[in-house]
Amino acid sequence: MEHKKPVVDAYRRRLLAASAGGAAAGLAGFSPASLAQAGGKPLPPFASFKDASRVIVHSASGIETQRSAFGTSGITDKDILFVRNNVAPPNASVTANADAWQVEFDGVSNPRALSVAELKRMGIASVSMVLQCSGNGRGFFGHKASGSQWKVGAAGNTLWSGVPMKAVIAQLGGVRQGMRYMTSTGGETIPPGIDPKTVMVERSVPWNAMEEAILAWELNGEPLPLAHGGPLRLIIPGYYGVNNIKYVKRVAFTPEQTGASIQSSGYRVRPIGQKGAPAQPSMWEMNLKSFITHPAGDQPMRPGVAQIYGVAFSGGSPVTGVDVSLDGGRTWHRAQFFGPDLGRYAWRQFALQARFEPGSYVLSSRAAAGAEVQPELRVENERGYAHNGWRDHSVKVTVA
Amino acid sequence: MEHKKPVVDAYRRRLLAASAGGAAAGLAGFSPASLAQAGGKPLPPFASFKDASRVIVHSASGIETQRSAFGTSGITDKDILFVRNNVAPPNASVTANADAWQVEFDGVSNPRALSVAELKRMGIASVSMVLQCSGNGRGFFGHKASGSQWKVGAAGNTLWSGVPMKAVIAQLGGVRQGMRYMTSTGGETIPPGIDPKTVMVERSVPWNAMEEAILAWELNGEPLPLAHGGPLRLIIPGYYGVNNIKYVKRVAFTPEQTGASIQSSGYRVRPIGQKGAPAQPSMWEMNLKSFITHPAGDQPMRPGVAQIYGVAFSGGSPVTGVDVSLDGGRTWHRAQFFGPDLGRYAWRQFALQARFEPGSYVLSSRAAAGAEVQPELRVENERGYAHNGWRDHSVKVTVA
Repeated sequence: MEHKKPVVDAYRRRLLAASAGGAAAGLAGFSPASLAQAGGKPLPPFASFKDASRVIVHSASGIETQRSAFGTSGITDKDILFVRNNVAPPNASVTANADAWQVEFDGVSNPRALSVAELKRMGIASVSMVLQCSGNGRGFFGHKASGSQWKVGAAGNTLWSGVPMKAVIAQLGGVRQGMRYMTSTGGETIPPGIDPKTVMVERSVPWNAMEEAILAWELNGEPLPLAHGGPLRLIIPGYYGVNNIKYVKRVAFTPEQTGASIQSSGYRVRPIGQKGAPAQPSMWEMNLKSFITHPAGDQPMRPGVAQIYGVAFSGGSPVTGVDVSLDGGRTWHRAQFFGPDLGRYAWRQFALQARFEPGSYVLSSRAAAGAEVQPELRVENERGYAHNGWRDHSVKVTVA
Repeated sequence: MEHKKPVVDAYRRRLLAASAGGAAAGLAGFSPASLAQAGGKPLPPFASFKDASRVIVHSASGIETQRSAFGTSGITDKDILFVRNNVAPPNASVTANADAWQVEFDGVSNPRALSVAELKRMGIASVSMVLQCSGNGRGFFGHKASGSQWKVGAAGNTLWSGVPMKAVIAQLGGVRQGMRYMTSTGGETIPPGIDPKTVMVERSVPWNAMEEAILAWELNGEPLPLAHGGPLRLIIPGYYGVNNIKYVKRVAFTPEQTGASIQSSGYRVRPIGQKGAPAQPSMWEMNLKSFITHPAGDQPMRPGVAQIYGVAFSGGSPVTGVDVSLDGGRTWHRAQFFGPDLGRYAWRQFALQARFEPGSYVLSSRAAAGAEVQPELRVENERGYAHNGWRDHSVKVTVA
C-alpha cells in the first residue's frame, strides 16, 4: 500500500538520500517572465473566455496564468485560471442542460445513477481551495521534462460549490466493506480504435478523501464552464488537479486502484529516466509551497519603497508563516498575511514592504506550516512533478 | 452632530414610535421574480461585460443581479454584480492607464496629490465586503419611491484590494486637528451649465471610517473595471454603496459635511412626502439583513427534499445565526452556515434542508447578530432606503 501522507515528502526523503544533494542548485531553472510569456498561441474555443493578455497559451489543452496577473484579492478569476486537459473535453452541449448530467455511483450499498438535478437536492457546501497541476513548476527543471513547461501559473485559488460527497454516499447506504479507494471517471469521449485504458481519465484516491470531497457545479459563484469541468467536477480539496475529475460520470469505491494508465503509470514520481509504475508515489496531496506574484520580474523597478507580495499554500496544513528574502536566500524577513483567511485548502496572501536602492535583487519566499518549512531545492524527477523548491521560484528584479 | 451608529435603527425607532405600526404589513410589497425580470433593456456600453441573462437592466445606470443568479460560492462575480451610477462615468480611457490616475489629499498635515502608481508602493490590503445600494429593496415599497425598483439584487459580496487609507494618511502626516469627516469626490465629468453641487458625487462620512477604508484598484482579483469605479475606488467596508466613491479624485478631511446635494439632501432617510435635509440620518452604515437566493420563486418546485439557501450580512457586526421559515414567519428553523467565513463585512451563506409536500409556501429568512434580530417590517421612508424587513424579502413557491 502506498504512503497515505505526505507522499511527495516521503519520496523527497528517499530520493535525496539516494542522490546525496544531486538536486539542482543555483538558479539553473530560473527564467525571466518575459520568456514564459513568449509564444502567443491562440486560445482554444472551449476557453475563448480567457483573457489572452494575462495568460500563456502552451497548447490547446494547456493555458497558464501569468505570474503578474494573480492580483491581491485571494481568488483567481475564471478569466485567467489555468486550464489543463488530458483528453479533449466532451461537446459543449453538456453544459447547456447541466441538470440532466448523470453520474453513476458504485461500490456503495445501493448503487445507482443520479442526475445533477437530484444531487442539487441532497446538500450544499462551498470550499475555497488551491487548484494546481501536478506539473506546476516543470518549466524550472533542467532535463526538459515532458509536458507543458509551467512556471508558477498552473495554479489558482478558487471557490467551488456543490454537494458534499459524503451526503450523497450516505443517501446511497454508505461505502461497501473492503473498499480502499474512491475511483472516479471523466466523461471525455475516447476516440475509437484506442484501448480506453491508455487514454481514459480515471483516478483513484484513498477512499476517505470523500470526507471533504464535493461534486461541484459552480466555480467562483458562476455555473461551472466546460473548460473547468462543467457540468460537474469532483473536487478533492488539497489534492493535485488531476484527481479533481472533470465532467465526472462515475464515482466508484473500489478495493484496488484503477488500471487506467493515468493512474498506474501516469502521475507517478520517479527518478529521471525511469518509467512510471504503480509502486511509485502517486500525485495525491499537494506539498507546502509559496511564490511571489509581485514584482513579477517582467519590468524594472524604481528605487524606493515597494510592496512584495505573493501566495502560500499546502495540501491542507494551515500555513503559519512566510519569510521573504531580497538576496536569494541569505537573509530572510517575516512577511505579513493580508486579506481574508479562506481556510486550510486556500492560499494565503503575504506581503512585505521593503526599500530598494538601485541594483539587482533575487526575491524569494519560503512558507512554513508549523514545523514544516518549504525546501530550497526541487526534487529531480522524470515528469517534473510537485516542484516546491523556493529557489527556482525566485524572482530576479533590477532596480534602476 | 448625527448619530454615529446605528443611524438607520435610531431612525427606525423614532419613526415607528411616531407611526404606531404604520409600516406596511403583509406581503403588499411582494413581487414574483418573473416581474422583476421583465424589461429587457440593453446593457450600457460601459457594462457590456455583464451577463444579460442573469441581470435586470433598469436603466443605463442601474443594473441588478437576478435573485436566482447569486449562486453559492460566497462571492458575486463581476459578470453579474449590480451597477448604480449617479452621474455618467468618465471616459473609459481612464482605466487604460490606471497607474497615472491622480488623487488629491487634503485636510492632512502635508496635502498633496498621489498617483495610483505611488499608492501601490505604500501598502496592500484586501477585504471582502457586501456592496449594497442604499435603495436595495425599494421595489418592495408601496408608495412608488423614486429611483430604480431594486428587489434584492442591488447588492453583492465582493473582494477589494488596494492600499489602506490609514497607511496613506500616515505618510501625509496624519489628519489635521478639528476634522470630523472624510469627504471624497468622484471623477465624473460635470456637464457645463449646471451648478456642480447639484450633481457632483461628493460624500462625507465620519472621519474615523478611514480606519478600515481602502483605496482599491482591484475587484475580485482583477483590475477594477470602469463600471465599478476603476481606476480607483474608495472602499468603506460596512457602508452603503454611495459612500464608496468611484473614480475617486479627492479625499479631504473636513470640519463639516460637504454641501453637495448628494450629501445635504440626497441619501437622507425621512418620512414619505418630506424633502431631504441635513438633520435627517445619512445613509452610512448598513443594517442587519438577509435574503433567500434559492429557491428564487421563479419556477415551481417538485415535492421532496430541497435545499433552501441565502445570504446574511450587516454593517460590520458578525452575523451569529439565521432562521428560516417555510410558512411566512409563523414557525422558524435554524439554518446552517456553509462556506468560508470571509470576515465581518462579508455576507455569510446559510442553508436549510427541508421536505416539501405539494402546496404553496412562503419562505422567509431572519438574521441575528448577537442580540439584534432582523426586523419583520420595512420602515416607510420617502426614498425607499435601507429596507431590511424580512417579510417583503420572502419568496413564494409552489410545489407541484
